[in-house]
Amino acid sequence: MIAVLKQNATNEQIESLTAWLKERGLTVHISRGELYTILGLIGDTSRIDTELLEGLEMVDSVKRVSEPFKSANRKFHPDDSIIEIGNLKIGGPHFQIMAGPCSVESLEQILSVAKSVSASGAAILRGGAFKPRTSPYDFQGLRADGIDILLEVKKQTGMPVVTEIMNANHLPMFEHVDIIQVGARNMQNFELLKELGKLQKPILLKRGLANTLLELLMSAEYIMAGGNHNIILCERGIRTFETYTRNTLDLSAVPMLRQLTHLPVVVDPSHATGNTRLVQPMAMAATAAGAHGLIIEVHPDPVNALCDGAQSLTPEQFAEVTEKVHRIRGIVEPGAALQ
Amino acid sequence: MIAVLKQNATNEQIESLTAWLKERGLTVHISRGELYTILGLIGDTSRIDTELLEGLEMVDSVKRVSEPFKSANRKFHPDDSIIEIGNLKIGGPHFQIMAGPCSVESLEQILSVAKSVSASGAAILRGGAFKPRTSPYDFQGLRADGIDILLEVKKQTGMPVVTEIMNANHLPMFEHVDIIQVGARNMQNFELLKELGKLQKPILLKRGLANTLLELLMSAEYIMAGGNHNIILCERGIRTFETYTRNTLDLSAVPMLRQLTHLPVVVDPSHATGNTRLVQPMAMAATAAGAHGLIIEVHPDPVNALCDGAQSLTPEQFAEVTEKVHRIRGIVEPGAALQ
Amino acid sequence: MIAVLKQNATNEQIESLTAWLKERGLTVHISRGELYTILGLIGDTSRIDTELLEGLEMVDSVKRVSEPFKSANRKFHPDDSIIEIGNLKIGGPHFQIMAGPCSVESLEQILSVAKSVSASGAAILRGGAFKPRTSPYDFQGLRADGIDILLEVKKQTGMPVVTEIMNANHLPMFEHVDIIQVGARNMQNFELLKELGKLQKPILLKRGLANTLLELLMSAEYIMAGGNHNIILCERGIRTFETYTRNTLDLSAVPMLRQLTHLPVVVDPSHATGNTRLVQPMAMAATAAGAHGLIIEVHPDPVNALCDGAQSLTPEQFAEVTEKVHRIRGIVEPGAALQ
Amino acid sequence: MIAVLKQNATNEQIESLTAWLKERGLTVHISRGELYTILGLIGDTSRIDTELLEGLEMVDSVKRVSEPFKSANRKFHPDDSIIEIGNLKIGGPHFQIMAGPCSVESLEQILSVAKSVSASGAAILRGGAFKPRTSPYDFQGLRADGIDILLEVKKQTGMPVVTEIMNANHLPMFEHVDIIQVGARNMQNFELLKELGKLQKPILLKRGLANTLLELLMSAEYIMAGGNHNIILCERGIRTFETYTRNTLDLSAVPMLRQLTHLPVVVDPSHATGNTRLVQPMAMAATAAGAHGLIIEVHPDPVNALCDGAQSLTPEQFAEVTEKVHRIRGIVEPGAALQ
Repeated sequence: MIAVLKQNATNEQIESLTAWLKERGLTVHISRGELYTILGLIGDTSRIDTELLEGLEMVDSVKRVSEPFKSANRKFHPDDSIIEIGNLKIGGPHFQIMAGPCSVESLEQILSVAKSVSASGAAILRGGAFKPRTSPYDFQGLRADGIDILLEVKKQTGMPVVTEIMNANHLPMFEHVDIIQVGARNMQNFELLKELGKLQKPILLKRGLANTLLELLMSAEYIMAGGNHNIILCERGIRTFETYTRNTLDLSAVPMLRQLTHLPVVVDPSHATGNTRLVQPMAMAATAAGAHGLIIEVHPDPVNALCDGAQSLTPEQFAEVTEKVHRIRGIVEPGAALQ
Repeated sequence: MIAVLKQNATNEQIESLTAWLKERGLTVHISRGELYTILGLIGDTSRIDTELLEGLEMVDSVKRVSEPFKSANRKFHPDDSIIEIGNLKIGGPHFQIMAGPCSVESLEQILSVAKSVSASGAAILRGGAFKPRTSPYDFQGLRADGIDILLEVKKQTGMPVVTEIMNANHLPMFEHVDIIQVGARNMQNFELLKELGKLQKPILLKRGLANTLLELLMSAEYIMAGGNHNIILCERGIRTFETYTRNTLDLSAVPMLRQLTHLPVVVDPSHATGNTRLVQPMAMAATAAGAHGLIIEVHPDPVNALCDGAQSLTPEQFAEVTEKVHRIRGIVEPGAALQ
Repeated sequence: MIAVLKQNATNEQIESLTAWLKERGLTVHISRGELYTILGLIGDTSRIDTELLEGLEMVDSVKRVSEPFKSANRKFHPDDSIIEIGNLKIGGPHFQIMAGPCSVESLEQILSVAKSVSASGAAILRGGAFKPRTSPYDFQGLRADGIDILLEVKKQTGMPVVTEIMNANHLPMFEHVDIIQVGARNMQNFELLKELGKLQKPILLKRGLANTLLELLMSAEYIMAGGNHNIILCERGIRTFETYTRNTLDLSAVPMLRQLTHLPVVVDPSHATGNTRLVQPMAMAATAAGAHGLIIEVHPDPVNALCDGAQSLTPEQFAEVTEKVHRIRGIVEPGAALQ
Repeated sequence: MIAVLKQNATNEQIESLTAWLKERGLTVHISRGELYTILGLIGDTSRIDTELLEGLEMVDSVKRVSEPFKSANRKFHPDDSIIEIGNLKIGGPHFQIMAGPCSVESLEQILSVAKSVSASGAAILRGGAFKPRTSPYDFQGLRADGIDILLEVKKQTGMPVVTEIMNANHLPMFEHVDIIQVGARNMQNFELLKELGKLQKPILLKRGLANTLLELLMSAEYIMAGGNHNIILCERGIRTFETYTRNTLDLSAVPMLRQLTHLPVVVDPSHATGNTRLVQPMAMAATAAGAHGLIIEVHPDPVNALCDGAQSLTPEQFAEVTEKVHRIRGIVEPGAALQ
């Protein structure tokens, strides 16, 4: 960590700050310039609060050199983490496709989609029971009934399920859910993250709409600090000024996160683009960028159904996507099978 | 609401969609162009889900004409709402200043600040007990103890208190808190908003870091839909590309919100700028823009204290700010006293 | 085009506006609602200025239904445009890689890079002679001498060259340049675009750092309106809040632009990421997303050279990238050779 | 300047880099940490190219401590610059209002507006002759004829005029223009800035739509590096995700720029908001924030004119604004007259 002190910092102030930092176990190197004095802080700075330092009158700015995340940091855990979901694996050489409708509507719908996507190469079933909606007047999901439907289909098909949580009080309902999803709007719901840290279940943590990769990793760190290291990161599009696409899928996040962390990284090309015709090219691009998996919306009848989004693929379109994704995966990770 | 249909929409599709819309009580006007057909939908469209319509293959785009918020809408409630906090009022001609430290540290600290800001014209005491922090390793606030300290100071001084909630399960602790603050990161924590809608206590709802005014109003609508109409909106800076200031205070939000809604609008110039020297000009500017109040960080000893941010004013600086704010308020709202 | 009129628009105002619109050749459909009146405007609206309409007191908002770009619009030109550069082609099934150093430094450097990238599959040589720099004190490029070097290498190797223009007065120097690049900061330098519209030379038009796809297409339209239809669009990363990467490469722009326009779309993964290790995955991802070409920075000795950016590949790394890109291209466009 | 070196930087690399930096006149302080080595560079670093350093394999990141702008820097020029426009002054205690229509339409229009705004306290006349428009099909301004009209009105009324330049080749037409405006889209048209650096005429430099304050100051530095120090900075709104307002007026830019630079700072509340009803509160707020002047759109008949924007005030509304602005100015700068 580096602290840049203002020109008018007095020797007394500098000594007092240096003493305070040394008490916290840090070594302090001082470089005095004409306009600024620079303190180089060596040691474990992850517990030093940068805002606190920046609040001091004598301090011009503070720059972290070491990343403030530790458990998620590849520097301290060089090998890829591999997360187990039943007897499936994701991370490292293991690639998985999660598919299903945006919202759970009925048992028939989920069962039909599950069978169909399973036949095309998706190993995990997705479907929203609790739906975060900007308006209180929009459909909020089937809620508890939606979870029941997912678990019934899991029982009938054997597919593990992933679905979103919005409230830590609902955790008992998620006991048999295989992967708990934290949506973009809850990425910094720190109280919820702390509760999920007490579990040992895999968490699919989606990046917030205007959050940086560092903030995503710090949210993963909240869960890991509680003891749960089973985290799958998910890029799902960020807010930009572009309006032709719903959000902007940040695929450079994939190789960048893979440098920074050992956690697996998956991509959701459906929500990001909000446009069926972009799902296939972006699923292929995400795979080419090195993603460990995809989460794709599939609906048996997206054209006529009035309850599903423009971003859903038909089962036929989904089958075409998985075939091409599989072939690209073979170029990116030649030694590994699709799963 | 307007739905633009694609050129290749068939007559059958148009008729089927029109029938579906009429069933929902809407009148449909059709304008056929060479490249597009436009449906003008007249009636109560607030419960029509635009994403659902946009999901239809035949639909090019959907545009809301009426705003999707009703309870918060000035069109249906032309007079300014006035929120009562004990025997204080905020909204319409009533202007209030809330002041206090970023974090509650000790009874002595809060008592000292409370007396000092009260003497300079702040009627409401602020202070954070639960602190949302990006890193799990940063100070998380005194939590329950912090609330106890605030309530003790309230008892001793009679000042109403405002403090942030992060978890609906903590609500019992907030029973004697006068205004419950929802922080920027929880603006779209819809489950929390629903719980706050069941109370009758004033809610200070802060705008999210990358949220639009429409999203802020929809979050207010979540609380109001539950029955609690005591909402104070707060502009606290949005995320932009600028780095000299921590966030960008969007003061045009103040007159814009006042056009759109009857709810009072206050401004937090401390968090937005993260810089003591900007607090005074921005507090004055917020008042000139028509804000109904300010929320300002004051710390008895910001220079030497190691636990407070660069954005805190000393009590002396705060007194200077309030004096100038008072004079500007006299120009903006000549008939009204400062309170 | 749709114009939404305010509730308080008088019949007289509506008639006067309708008459004015009819004079401009448009048919006007009126839908009257309780809160709003909607005008559906049918006909050629590309020359109607939306800001002018929005400026009218009676108008609430205006929404374009037809795109305001005509020459670039795929609706009026369904087949892919194919741009010829000497006897090379780009667009439709034709894919090209442009490679070379960020800045032209010397004849030896450019000659060495040209031979090397040409051997690895790049058909076009890139290199900056005029460099747009944020600071007046940073290196501004070799300017005229840089162009001379590029043209000398073109003569010796036969490779066509692409280089950036910053001032229409420099056009005489660009007479033998094969593709003129317009950089991100000049995307809306409308006076420059008009001058380029008078040529018949291919223009590589880069998207601005905070510009939308519509704005990019309108800038292409400026050039096309002057008569030059030889335009290659280039996605090169947009400004977002992310700081680990220099910019955010928006790969969804590739399939989205291909829906909207017939012009070829290429991607620059080097500038976008500013990070060597991200260039390969993003070049592969861009190809998977359907790009018609890539523009990649290659420097013979990026590690030790003090005058080149972190985003340059060595010739060896470049050869590895082109090999994988070639294989992905075979999946995306099975019928076409890499050429 | 600080350079953070990676853990794997060899002693040889560090020595070679240190030697190179010392050759450039810098003193280098080395702090070795477990994970990183930090170089503190002391001396004149304004001519060191940070991208060049960041391009080195061994370098993790570079942080400027001194600002890279020198001529514009308040540290080296502590007193406010005062710019003279004929016998008017702007900067320091001198405050000026510039007013007039968005576009020059006719001599009658400009003459009428000039007399009216002059009577209400505007000393400088604004009006666009060359109009930057996103679409080539939109009205591009009266161009040379517009300049002629402005100069004729200047002759008749004695008011100095400010108008926008888009092409350095047009400079001869601007000989008698008093202040040359550089629009937001040309803020980083470096070739144009260099030409303006050769003049001694005041330049009104508008901030780009997605540019930082540092970039604005670096663009001012381009002009100053050429010898022209007569620069007025202008905040005119930045692009954000908000859609109710056209742009987001960043008023914290005013006090922040005043800390960073000695140049005067004015605010354009008309373009920023695009909404007449926001112009008055934002003009007042800009004045309260410490602006040295305002630039406001006024049109004799904005409601019925089909050629003017929603952001223009009537002369009556303008008179009301100036009166309130005058009173706020008296609070902000008690010793100075409005002039």
